[in-house]
Amino acid sequence: MQKSYEVAVIGGGIIGSAIAYYLAKEQVDVAVLEEGQIGLKATSAAAGMLGAHSELENEVKAFFSFARYSQSLYSVLKEELYELSGIDLGFRKGGILKLAFSKRDKEKLAMVLAQPTVTWLEPEEVRNLEQEVAPNILGAAYIEEDINVLPARVCQAFAKGAQLYGASIVEHTKVLRIKKQQDMFQIETTKELIKAKRIVIASGVWSTPFFRQLGLQYEMIPVKGECIAVESAHFVLKHTIFHDKYYIVPRNNGELVIGATMQENDWSEQVSLNGVETLIQKAKALFPAIGQMNIKASWSGLRPQTFNQKPFIGYHPEDNAILFATGHYRNGVLLAPATGEMIASLILRRDVKQEWVEEFQVGGLFRR
Amino acid sequence: MQKSYEVAVIGGGIIGSAIAYYLAKEQVDVAVLEEGQIGLKATSAAAGMLGAHSELENEVKAFFSFARYSQSLYSVLKEELYELSGIDLGFRKGGILKLAFSKRDKEKLAMVLAQPTVTWLEPEEVRNLEQEVAPNILGAAYIEEDINVLPARVCQAFAKGAQLYGASIVEHTKVLRIKKQQDMFQIETTKELIKAKRIVIASGVWSTPFFRQLGLQYEMIPVKGECIAVESAHFVLKHTIFHDKYYIVPRNNGELVIGATMQENDWSEQVSLNGVETLIQKAKALFPAIGQMNIKASWSGLRPQTFNQKPFIGYHPEDNAILFATGHYRNGVLLAPATGEMIASLILRRDVKQEWVEEFQVGGLFRR
Amino acid sequence: MQKSYEVAVIGGGIIGSAIAYYLAKEQVDVAVLEEGQIGLKATSAAAGMLGAHSELENEVKAFFSFARYSQSLYSVLKEELYELSGIDLGFRKGGILKLAFSKRDKEKLAMVLAQPTVTWLEPEEVRNLEQEVAPNILGAAYIEEDINVLPARVCQAFAKGAQLYGASIVEHTKVLRIKKQQDMFQIETTKELIKAKRIVIASGVWSTPFFRQLGLQYEMIPVKGECIAVESAHFVLKHTIFHDKYYIVPRNNGELVIGATMQENDWSEQVSLNGVETLIQKAKALFPAIGQMNIKASWSGLRPQTFNQKPFIGYHPEDNAILFATGHYRNGVLLAPATGEMIASLILRRDVKQEWVEEFQVGGLFRR
Amino acid sequence: MQKSYEVAVIGGGIIGSAIAYYLAKEQVDVAVLEEGQIGLKATSAAAGMLGAHSELENEVKAFFSFARYSQSLYSVLKEELYELSGIDLGFRKGGILKLAFSKRDKEKLAMVLAQPTVTWLEPEEVRNLEQEVAPNILGAAYIEEDINVLPARVCQAFAKGAQLYGASIVEHTKVLRIKKQQDMFQIETTKELIKAKRIVIASGVWSTPFFRQLGLQYEMIPVKGECIAVESAHFVLKHTIFHDKYYIVPRNNGELVIGATMQENDWSEQVSLNGVETLIQKAKALFPAIGQMNIKASWSGLRPQTFNQKPFIGYHPEDNAILFATGHYRNGVLLAPATGEMIASLILRRDVKQEWVEEFQVGGLFRR
Repeated sequence: MQKSYEVAVIGGGIIGSAIAYYLAKEQVDVAVLEEGQIGLKATSAAAGMLGAHSELENEVKAFFSFARYSQSLYSVLKEELYELSGIDLGFRKGGILKLAFSKRDKEKLAMVLAQPTVTWLEPEEVRNLEQEVAPNILGAAYIEEDINVLPARVCQAFAKGAQLYGASIVEHTKVLRIKKQQDMFQIETTKELIKAKRIVIASGVWSTPFFRQLGLQYEMIPVKGECIAVESAHFVLKHTIFHDKYYIVPRNNGELVIGATMQENDWSEQVSLNGVETLIQKAKALFPAIGQMNIKASWSGLRPQTFNQKPFIGYHPEDNAILFATGHYRNGVLLAPATGEMIASLILRRDVKQEWVEEFQVGGLFRR
Repeated sequence: MQKSYEVAVIGGGIIGSAIAYYLAKEQVDVAVLEEGQIGLKATSAAAGMLGAHSELENEVKAFFSFARYSQSLYSVLKEELYELSGIDLGFRKGGILKLAFSKRDKEKLAMVLAQPTVTWLEPEEVRNLEQEVAPNILGAAYIEEDINVLPARVCQAFAKGAQLYGASIVEHTKVLRIKKQQDMFQIETTKELIKAKRIVIASGVWSTPFFRQLGLQYEMIPVKGECIAVESAHFVLKHTIFHDKYYIVPRNNGELVIGATMQENDWSEQVSLNGVETLIQKAKALFPAIGQMNIKASWSGLRPQTFNQKPFIGYHPEDNAILFATGHYRNGVLLAPATGEMIASLILRRDVKQEWVEEFQVGGLFRR
Repeated sequence: MQKSYEVAVIGGGIIGSAIAYYLAKEQVDVAVLEEGQIGLKATSAAAGMLGAHSELENEVKAFFSFARYSQSLYSVLKEELYELSGIDLGFRKGGILKLAFSKRDKEKLAMVLAQPTVTWLEPEEVRNLEQEVAPNILGAAYIEEDINVLPARVCQAFAKGAQLYGASIVEHTKVLRIKKQQDMFQIETTKELIKAKRIVIASGVWSTPFFRQLGLQYEMIPVKGECIAVESAHFVLKHTIFHDKYYIVPRNNGELVIGATMQENDWSEQVSLNGVETLIQKAKALFPAIGQMNIKASWSGLRPQTFNQKPFIGYHPEDNAILFATGHYRNGVLLAPATGEMIASLILRRDVKQEWVEEFQVGGLFRR
Repeated sequence: MQKSYEVAVIGGGIIGSAIAYYLAKEQVDVAVLEEGQIGLKATSAAAGMLGAHSELENEVKAFFSFARYSQSLYSVLKEELYELSGIDLGFRKGGILKLAFSKRDKEKLAMVLAQPTVTWLEPEEVRNLEQEVAPNILGAAYIEEDINVLPARVCQAFAKGAQLYGASIVEHTKVLRIKKQQDMFQIETTKELIKAKRIVIASGVWSTPFFRQLGLQYEMIPVKGECIAVESAHFVLKHTIFHDKYYIVPRNNGELVIGATMQENDWSEQVSLNGVETLIQKAKALFPAIGQMNIKASWSGLRPQTFNQKPFIGYHPEDNAILFATGHYRNGVLLAPATGEMIASLILRRDVKQEWVEEFQVGGLFRR
């Protein structure tokens, strides 16, 4: 007996789980095929900043509206997923302080500061919010709306929610090859052959071979990010501190997460001494007192980067039965809800904003 | 230079931390002396059920009103401590189902069922709430108001909150001996001599020597409790399931905690194979499907039991400068807020309900 | 630039690492392609009993001579690999006691007892060796020669040794597809395309798709084994205790390993409550005092079983450039050295005992 | 019923366990009172270098002969304890390279180099032994005889060996106060009152209160040492590398330990970011390639330092029924066997070298 589904989603990270959730909620018969366990790879490694505003530096409008929309979905999901699955998303307010140490830093914040909800704070104002911040700052952009979640929790909640709506979450099942035969996809796995009418590739950095098998030549570049968690014995950090791609994020349990390095083309999922050293030095530059805190854990994850540095969310150029939702790079957690909803809408032939379709088309133009 | 405080609290579990919090909030100069790290002993081992109603079987009125009051304080603390410390208490609603497998079981629930907010559910009604419950139940008492928290988080938040109000949290400092000299207590520790005008013994099962040193002959009996955590892959448990001192508690992260064994006079803090076997057998009796779940962790803690089986919360019989807050047995997490507030009130000479003072007096009468 | 090797070994468990070691030692340009990290799957889960004698119940002669030979290689490897890699194999003598609780049990030991080095012990003799053994035994077969190693260490040492002899250990590289083109194999991985003149499939339970891709229809059946480790506080176990596929193995650090369950067709790599319960019950039946010991850890692994219940070690029936070394089921650690040496000999066109070639031929006859 | 022993040893680290072992072996009725679990504090944190030669810089003769003698005992204990307890000490040869980066460094090695078994190596010779060593060395002292063990294993083996010879290992029992009454010591613990004819204080950094209670004013200064373990993926380190109190030690499992910081008067047992940063920087200075290795673990321990910087091993100045064996600072693992034997000899009234008695007398003169 062969298993057959309406939609098979390849990859059970936060993106694949979100897609399954939005599809199952609409009674679509969907399966997630995950080679290990749900949410244990890049998802678990993410710090969980929903920096819709703070990640923007030279961002185009469509990306930004998608990010803000996705962030807004979290407010709904927070209750919805907790009611359904009993899993708390670890929602946390407080806002993000993007520090400026130089005029150049401040100039780079111009686009962020242009937003109505973002304010510039002078050094004393920053210190009023966070007393122990580095003494040599010029100020900070304060993005009060940006929030944090616990990414692994979000992913678990999406997957469990999907299951409760009827989806199949198939763990420990590696997909080796996908072939199309007479309008059905034959999905060869390590365990069995599975059939599906439509497939969605949501395999993050491991998507490359599926592009190849499906006739496309795109390649995912892994950008390893290393993080450490520390225990805040001496002070309470209430806001996320951010500078130059590095950050210190307070967690709901009183720990702080320091992230993240950027190692292109490093496929290992371990944490090097060089990485730890860089994180400590950077964190001390932002927050000198952190040097006295205690290390609790370290981990890493592989961010999936596309050639044009934008996620691919949409149809295969030549086959509407194949969809992609991959390449979210640093923004997987932020964009997961909107990605899940968008893929579900495309499959259900519902309207999707044209600017988003264009912005995230598979193999689209370079980010301007 | 010798350190000197208004009040020294001996023990940094959830009880000692709560006391420090309520005192520091009133500008009392208080120190917590903790021999290891805050909240790592019995506090961390607790499942965190706030069973104000469900722990009652033959309970007296005063105990019950204290428990309900303490539970109500949690609703306030949830916001208050999060605002202050940034630590989320892991508050979780859902209620408790106390299962009855026999007429005898049901009779024992009479007092619980007599409460206006508790309802009796027939087997099908129980199954409507939790589909996978044991097929052979006679029904269950449903205590919708009872909630859960994460005890280690509560303790961390109390301690950090106390610190922010000016308290000293002194970890890695073992108290060896307490002597009174001319209205001051000399506290000999492994590190240094500390002075205090008043002392509070909040050392749980390790309180016995302090009783002795302070002229009392009471003894704490350790009752080791072992727990395991499992991962719920197959279903979502929304309610705590309880029977005969054993329980299955859902956590905010989707895991379930199965507890707890009762090993009198076992001082080890490890988990025996016999303990694990008992927990699995008991859990399967309540919830057969749980056998297919996966084990995630195991741990144990030492509940402090007094000779009269009631907590001691109040003055030394002959010296008002010495207070005790210990012996909370299975109810430390539930009673921590009210205990903290009561000790603070006693020190600040504020009114405390007379029935509570009598119920919890040091060396009081046997529980009826 | 494309990487090209003489031999590519697919799978970096103890079998693949042993093969690489024996090839590299002979100056063959070999690469191990491992999808995760070396030795972290079934290898790490094994208890490490080298039961050349004790695994035999109805075993054929060729299997037995291969097993004994492989066991004897360990005595050499112990020094050789330590000198080379600095890794200690955790070699441990002591022997195995195969308990008999019934006449039937004793009859099943007949073949084991027929060996010159194995002796039958009466109950009191068993108790002289291990005082706390179950009181209701009829006796035991004592196999003094059987030893233990730490499988993950052996695998690490093989891999590092191979590396030092020039092999490439390529981790985090999943093989998706293997094709032959003009005498070269094209190995498509998640990362890049790799070429090799010969390939060896050593992928354990994950070998099935490679059979298929290489024109064979064999299938690996996973037989999950769950284990727990306990800390021996009360007594020292010096011998491995074995009965009915379950065992208690003493480790060099004073811990005991209890293993192992047998779950056919379960691909998950977690440990169920049912599994833990079974292990505890079984261990208590062999050694009642173990119930008071403390649980330290639990884990599981997937044993690869072939249709004929024998390992496949040898050439593809139609292509000598393709070799298999998989399906070792319960005997991977025991057979790794002889397997590694045999595959190397086949590749180097050296003599291999004909009875071994026949016994382990790919797709051979059913075990009698 | 009150427990009563010939000798009570206060403290179950490697020193206390060694003492119990040597006493129990001579049929003395001895108990070890350990407040937590055997060997989990400073013992577990030690790297396990037995640097009898390498720790010496300005050392006096008596200390050195004691250290060499203790090192030699390990060769015997290795077999003896394994036979008895089944625990492998993790013995590892290879020797220590003490690097010199400057003339000053080389001068400081003069005393070490004066020993007949130590040789000076030129940079190329060092590189022949360890290819990846820092390029800017002037050379190294090569101390081939120095070995490593796993300290926690040694301690476990001593304790289990002692138990098998009849000793009582009493864990989870904190000693609060010791009083002498009519030739018997009354030992007040958290659990019960224990009696003993003789006592040995082997409590490391926690010995201070016992000095006080026994009429002496000595104080132990904690010197926290932080370590990290890394996984050597890229090379095999065969020798311990040492410079300026920092070291890189290869372990039997292929991991390397980098140690250790020196934090005076820090009683916390955690690992700070500053500590990790220092260790990484120092290790990279000795071995640049280590920066690419992966972090596996971090931990810390409190070394006990006396005012005269020498261990106290011997009688109380005024009472031969009280003995001390504490203050071993950086040398606890190295000196444990000789310390255990010497204390046993003193109790059994056997001969002990007079120069050792003088060198280690309680409250002796300053180290010259």
